[in-house]
Amino acid sequence: MPPENMPAIGYSGRPGEVRERLDGATLVVSNPSNIRWLTGFGGSLGWVVIGPDVFTLVTDGRYRDRAEGEFAEHGIDADVVAPRTRAEVRDAVVLATMGASAVRAEADHLTHSAWSDLAGDLPLEPDGATIATLRRIKDAGEVARMTWAAEIADAALAEIAPRLGDGLTEADVRDELEHRMRRLGADGPSYATIVGTGPANAARPHHETGRRRIVEGDTVIIDVGALVDGYHSDMTRSFVVGAPSAEQQEWYELVRIAQSAGLAAVAPGVTTGQLDAACRDVLRQAGVADFFVHGTGHGVGLDIHEDPFAAAGGTMVLLEGDVVTVEPGLYRDGFGGFRIEDLVAVTASGGRPLTHLPKDSPCLPSPPTT
Amino acid sequence: MPPENMPAIGYSGRPGEVRERLDGATLVVSNPSNIRWLTGFGGSLGWVVIGPDVFTLVTDGRYRDRAEGEFAEHGIDADVVAPRTRAEVRDAVVLATMGASAVRAEADHLTHSAWSDLAGDLPLEPDGATIATLRRIKDAGEVARMTWAAEIADAALAEIAPRLGDGLTEADVRDELEHRMRRLGADGPSYATIVGTGPANAARPHHETGRRRIVEGDTVIIDVGALVDGYHSDMTRSFVVGAPSAEQQEWYELVRIAQSAGLAAVAPGVTTGQLDAACRDVLRQAGVADFFVHGTGHGVGLDIHEDPFAAAGGTMVLLEGDVVTVEPGLYRDGFGGFRIEDLVAVTASGGRPLTHLPKDSPCLPSPPTT
Repeated sequence: MPPENMPAIGYSGRPGEVRERLDGATLVVSNPSNIRWLTGFGGSLGWVVIGPDVFTLVTDGRYRDRAEGEFAEHGIDADVVAPRTRAEVRDAVVLATMGASAVRAEADHLTHSAWSDLAGDLPLEPDGATIATLRRIKDAGEVARMTWAAEIADAALAEIAPRLGDGLTEADVRDELEHRMRRLGADGPSYATIVGTGPANAARPHHETGRRRIVEGDTVIIDVGALVDGYHSDMTRSFVVGAPSAEQQEWYELVRIAQSAGLAAVAPGVTTGQLDAACRDVLRQAGVADFFVHGTGHGVGLDIHEDPFAAAGGTMVLLEGDVVTVEPGLYRDGFGGFRIEDLVAVTASGGRPLTHLPKDSPCLPSPPTT
Repeated sequence: MPPENMPAIGYSGRPGEVRERLDGATLVVSNPSNIRWLTGFGGSLGWVVIGPDVFTLVTDGRYRDRAEGEFAEHGIDADVVAPRTRAEVRDAVVLATMGASAVRAEADHLTHSAWSDLAGDLPLEPDGATIATLRRIKDAGEVARMTWAAEIADAALAEIAPRLGDGLTEADVRDELEHRMRRLGADGPSYATIVGTGPANAARPHHETGRRRIVEGDTVIIDVGALVDGYHSDMTRSFVVGAPSAEQQEWYELVRIAQSAGLAAVAPGVTTGQLDAACRDVLRQAGVADFFVHGTGHGVGLDIHEDPFAAAGGTMVLLEGDVVTVEPGLYRDGFGGFRIEDLVAVTASGGRPLTHLPKDSPCLPSPPTT
C-alpha cells in the first residue's frame, strides 16, 4: 500500500510554465501523457487548448465527471467542454483557439489525418517539444511515485528470482511478477514484462515472453517495472540457472562493470553520448562491443521511453531532475545474454538509483527472509 | 493450454489480396496491427512496403531474427531489411518504393511528422482503409483464436463472480481475473480490465478500476477479455451484490432484453445503425434511452476496437466474417449501472456468440463445479 506522506505532484504551477514557453502562442495538446502532466486528467480521450487567455479540456462526454473531479483534486482551473460526437469534439477544439495569434500542435503525436483536418481551419504549426522538455524535470511527488514503483518491482523480483530453477516457463515468471506487483500496490506492470531465457531467447534484447521452460545452464534476462499513478519504473536483472560457466561468469562481469561505469557517469551536464560511452568503452576494451546492440538508456516518467535517450554520439545534456535508465547488455545467439538496468534520478551530486535489487552475481539469490 | 488442431491463420494469400486492391499502387504500411495481419510479424517496430513487384519489411536490426522466423512459419515470402538507425530505416522505406507509380501511406496512423518526413521524397497519398477493410473478414484460424480467448475470459469470470460479495476491492477482482486468464493460457488481458462498482463507479462506462471495496447493494460492471496470438476477446457481465432492489432488477432486465434484441439483429446485410437501433429502441420504449450513453458495439480482432463501429445512424453494412460486440448499458450517477456485452461472429445464418457466460440474472452465480 502507498507509503505514508507521499508528496503531492505540483500540477498547479504547470500551466504557467507552459504559457511562459509559448510566448503568446496557443498550443493544442493531444498526447495523453502531456495532458496528464499538465492537468492531472488521466482519461485516454481528450484535447487541451492552452494559450494566453484559454485553458480548456475538450473530451468525450463520458469523461466529464472524471475530468472535473481530477481538476478539483489537483487545483487545476481549466474549463471542461464535453460534447458527445467526434465532429463536435473537433469543432470545440477549433473554437477554443479562436483569436489566437499562432496555433501549434504536436506533430510528433497527431496523425496526419487529424492534423490535416484541423489545419483546414487553423494556421497550424508544429510545436517543438514544449511539454516534453518540461516533463523531463520530475518534482518530489513524481519521484516519490517512481521510487515506490521501483520498490514494488524490486520486491516482486526478489520473491521470484530464487525460483527460476524450479522448472517455470517464461510466461510463469512474467505472470507471477505482474501479479505480485499488483498485490504490492501497483496499478499494473509498467510495460510488457520481458522474460528472455536460454541460448536463443535471452539473445534477443526485445524478446516477447513465451512458453519456453527454463532449464539448468540458461542465461535469464528479466526486464520488469511497475506503474503507479501513471508513473513507470524500469529495471533489468540477469541470472544463470545453476553454476555459471567461465564464459557466463566473464560476460556477466563485463556487463556489471559496464553498468557500474554508466551509473558513475550520471550527473547534470553530462551528455547522453558521454553516458553511452561510459558503458560502451568498457565493452569495447574487452573486445565485445559488437554484442552490445542497443543504446545505453532513456528517460522514464509518464512514458516508459521519453527524453533523454542515451545512444552513441548523443548530444542531449542530462539535467538535475531527469530520471533515466542505465542498461548495457551483451547478446549472442547460441549463448544467450545479460542485461543489467537501474532507474536513476539525476541529482546535483550525481545519479541516485531508485532500483536496489542486488546485481553482484549471476547466481540465483536465496528467498527473501520475511 | 491451446485447443488441439487449432487451424492456421491464412497469411499466404493476403499479399495477393492487398495487391489486388491497390491496383498498381504501392502501399507503405506502418500500423503494427496491419503489419501483423499481412505478414504475421508481431514486433512493434516496422514498416512494410507492398506493391506490384515489392514486398519488404523494414525493421530495427534487433528484430531481424524474429521477423525471418515468423515469415518462415507463416509462409510469407518477403524481404527483410534491418538497418540499425532510425535514419537508415526511413531511407530503406523510401528505397523500397523506388519506381512505384503511386505511393500511399496510412494517414490515420502515421504521425504528421513522419508523414511530412516521407512526403519530402515521395509523392505520398492517403490510403483509404485497404487493410482495415480486408481485416474485417476473419478466417477460421482467427476465429479459433478469438473463440479460445473468449472461453478463457468466460472461465476466469465464472471463477471470480461468485466471490464478488466477499469484501474484495475493484483492483482485487481485476488482478484475480487477469492472473487467472494467464494461467488459462492467455498471453495477457485484451485491454485494461474494467471493474466498476457502486453508485458512482459503475455509473461511468469507462471507469478506471480503483481501490474501492465492493459492498452489499452495489451494482458491479466487469468488462474483461483475453489476448491470444494477438487476437482479442471482449465481454461484459453485470451483477448486484445481495438481493437486487426492484429498480435494480428492472434496469437489469431492460439491459438484458435490449442486448438480446441486438444479438437477434446481427446478420450479414444489416447496417450498424440498424444494430444500434435494435438495442436502443428497447430502452427508448422503456423511457430510459438517455441513460444509454454510448454506441452499441464495435468490431474486434487484432485491435480491440476496429471496424465496424455500431452507433446511432451508422451506415456500414455487417459482413459475413465480421466479429463484433453487442453491448448496451444503462448508467446513472447515484444508482450505478449495468452493461451486458457478448462477442459475436457474423455468419450467414446470423450472429454466433463466442462468449457464453450466463447473463439471465444479476444475482451472483454459484462457484463452478469442477
